[in-house]
Amino acid sequence: MSGAITPETAPPRAVVRFDCTGRAVGKMRNELDVRMVEPMEEHFELATDEGPFHGGDASAPPPLALFVGGLTGCIMTQIRAFAKRMGVALNDLQVEARVAWDWEKAGRLYETAPKFFEIDVLIDSDAPLDLQLDLVQAARKGCFIEQTLGRENRITHRLKTAEGWVAADDRRAFDPD
Amino acid sequence: MSGAITPETAPPRAVVRFDCTGRAVGKMRNELDVRMVEPMEEHFELATDEGPFHGGDASAPPPLALFVGGLTGCIMTQIRAFAKRMGVALNDLQVEARVAWDWEKAGRLYETAPKFFEIDVLIDSDAPLDLQLDLVQAARKGCFIEQTLGRENRITHRLKTAEGWVAADDRRAFDPD
Repeated sequence: MSGAITPETAPPRAVVRFDCTGRAVGKMRNELDVRMVEPMEEHFELATDEGPFHGGDASAPPPLALFVGGLTGCIMTQIRAFAKRMGVALNDLQVEARVAWDWEKAGRLYETAPKFFEIDVLIDSDAPLDLQLDLVQAARKGCFIEQTLGRENRITHRLKTAEGWVAADDRRAFDPD
Repeated sequence: MSGAITPETAPPRAVVRFDCTGRAVGKMRNELDVRMVEPMEEHFELATDEGPFHGGDASAPPPLALFVGGLTGCIMTQIRAFAKRMGVALNDLQVEARVAWDWEKAGRLYETAPKFFEIDVLIDSDAPLDLQLDLVQAARKGCFIEQTLGRENRITHRLKTAEGWVAADDRRAFDPD
């Protein structure tokens, strides 16, 4: 694993940034050009689509599949990255995530809200239970997605117009009906 | 688009649920079996991996790429789904997302926290600006991932032991050093 970052070679702090350009194609397919921007540059091509029930061609997974897969992969990656550093030898690891949202019709549109997030961790290791629990807690603190979901985040939006960018965040009088 | 759900055929409310089983393989690759469970059953195979710098084989995108791609795809899907219902004819749509996290070393481990989420929406349409802004706001309310990120969520964790499931959420005395 030459060249891999270790606790000794890691800087004290850093920013991790990902940018994504999404382009609408077809009926409901979005082509996603994802770039890690910091701390280094990497590039990934992804896509989402809906099934026929939602007007798409099922040519790619839906956005929520990427979201739930990303959450699961993130916590697993942290568990695996930290296990060695914490002296937990992992024979095997499986994680089961269950994520649900409430969905409610609002006129011709709809609104959604999170309902629950449940994560089951199945560690195959001879390490004592206390150490395994410490590992799960440490992994949660190092998991970008867990830390993001556990707090109220502000997402700022801008809309492109002929005159430049317009803030697209405050629409107080908007009524979805 | 026969069989597609419409505002008229949609139920008043529903639960949307995704489950994911992740299996650790190789060095840092996670194989993800993602299933939409409600309102209907669908199945998707995904994977994440890290690059060599983080001890992986780069055989799949990292979890954060799936997360940022899912967020971008989700808001785009809502904009496209609502545009027709709101009388906005979309000639084209592009979305640019920028998501960053702070990362800080903590002994042999690390901790992370969200830094910013920025979404730029580029709509090509002859619809008036006011209606385009209404569309963006409606899309945000219908976007599962936006609504999830905009509030503090509780993720519950359990660890499998020989005696059954143990809660893996409260480790007050744990010190990452």
